[in-house]
Amino acid sequence: MPRATRNSEVLHLAAELFAANGFAGTSVRTVAGRARLTKAGLYYHIRDKEDLLYRICEETIATILAGGRRALAGVTDPRQRIAALINNHAEFFRERPDNLTVLNRDLNSLSVAPRAAIRKLERSYLDLLRSAIADGQKAGVVRRHLDPTVAAFTLLSALNTLNQWYDPKGRVGHRALVKQITTLLCDGLFVSGAAADRGAKR
Amino acid sequence: MPRATRNSEVLHLAAELFAANGFAGTSVRTVAGRARLTKAGLYYHIRDKEDLLYRICEETIATILAGGRRALAGVTDPRQRIAALINNHAEFFRERPDNLTVLNRDLNSLSVAPRAAIRKLERSYLDLLRSAIADGQKAGVVRRHLDPTVAAFTLLSALNTLNQWYDPKGRVGHRALVKQITTLLCDGLFVSGAAADRGAKR
Repeated sequence: MPRATRNSEVLHLAAELFAANGFAGTSVRTVAGRARLTKAGLYYHIRDKEDLLYRICEETIATILAGGRRALAGVTDPRQRIAALINNHAEFFRERPDNLTVLNRDLNSLSVAPRAAIRKLERSYLDLLRSAIADGQKAGVVRRHLDPTVAAFTLLSALNTLNQWYDPKGRVGHRALVKQITTLLCDGLFVSGAAADRGAKR
Repeated sequence: MPRATRNSEVLHLAAELFAANGFAGTSVRTVAGRARLTKAGLYYHIRDKEDLLYRICEETIATILAGGRRALAGVTDPRQRIAALINNHAEFFRERPDNLTVLNRDLNSLSVAPRAAIRKLERSYLDLLRSAIADGQKAGVVRRHLDPTVAAFTLLSALNTLNQWYDPKGRVGHRALVKQITTLLCDGLFVSGAAADRGAKR
C-alpha cells in the first residue's frame, strides 16, 4: 500500500480512538494495535502522539476547507453559495464525525505552535464562510444588520456540535437533518412574512 | 455570611478556576486558596472535587431552567416565548460565561450517577425549548417540517458555544449579539422576501 494511503488510514483509525476515548485516554500502543503496526512501525508514520493529533486536526480542517472551495466553484447565486458551504460541512460530518469530535474537543491538547497552525487554517475557513455571507449582504439577500462574523460562528456552532446530539440511526436521517438545519439557519425557525400572517389567522 | 451565600460564592470561584484551567488542571487547594479558606474549611462546603464540579453543573442548568420558566410566565405569543428562552440563555451566558464553559466541557469528568442527574436536568430544559417550538408549530408560526428536537439542539448549540468565540470586549456588544442571534435563528440569515420566493424549498 502506498505510504500516503497508509498514512491516511492510520489517521482515520487514530481519530476513531481519540473520539471514543479522548486524546489523553489513548496510548500510541493502542493506535499501533488498531492499525496492526508495531509501535516502531507506527513511528514510521508519525513523530509522536501529539504529531498524530496535529495531523488529524490538519487533515480535518484542510479537507473541509478544500471541500468548501470546490463546492463554491461555478456557483454564482449568493444564497446557493452559503447553502453549498453548509452542505459541504454537514457532508464532512456524515463521513467523518470522529474527525470533527477530535478537532473540536482535543485541539487544546496541542502545544502552542501546532495549535496556531491549525487555528490559521480554521481562520481561512471562517473567512470563506464570512465572505460568502458578506457577498450575500452586498447582493441584498442576507440581512444587512447581521455581523458576518457573528453569523459565520453561529453557522459553525450548529454544524460543529452535531456529533454531540445527532444520532444517525435515529428518527431524522442525514439528508433531512441537513435540509432542516439549512432551512433553520438560512430562512429561520419562524414562518416568514406573509405566511406568518396566514398562519396566525388559521 | 449565611452558609448558602458562601456556598454559592465558592461555586462561582471554582467555576472561574475550572473554566480557566480545566477540571483536571485545578486542585482543591487552589479553589480553597481563591476562596480564602483552608482545605478543611472548603470541605465544610463540599465533599470532594467531583462534588464541586457536580454542584457547578447542577447550579448552572437549574438556574437556566428556572430562568427560562420565569421568562415564559405571562407570555402567550408563541414567537415571543421562543425569543424569551433564547434571551434567558444568552443573559445567563453574559452573567456566568464560566459556568457554561464548565458545564459544556467538563460534564464528562463526572462519574455515571451524578452525570445522569445533570443529564436529567438538561433534558427538562430541552423539553421546555422543544415544547415552545412545538407550540409555535401548532400556532402556525414555526415552520411545520422542522423537527422540534433538531431545532432545539440547533438553538442550544448556537447559545452554548458563545464562550468559544465571542469576546464581550469586541466590536459587537452583548445586546447586539443577542439581537443578531435571535434574528438569525428565528428569522434566518436570508431576507424573508428572498426566502418566500423559494416557496417550494420551505
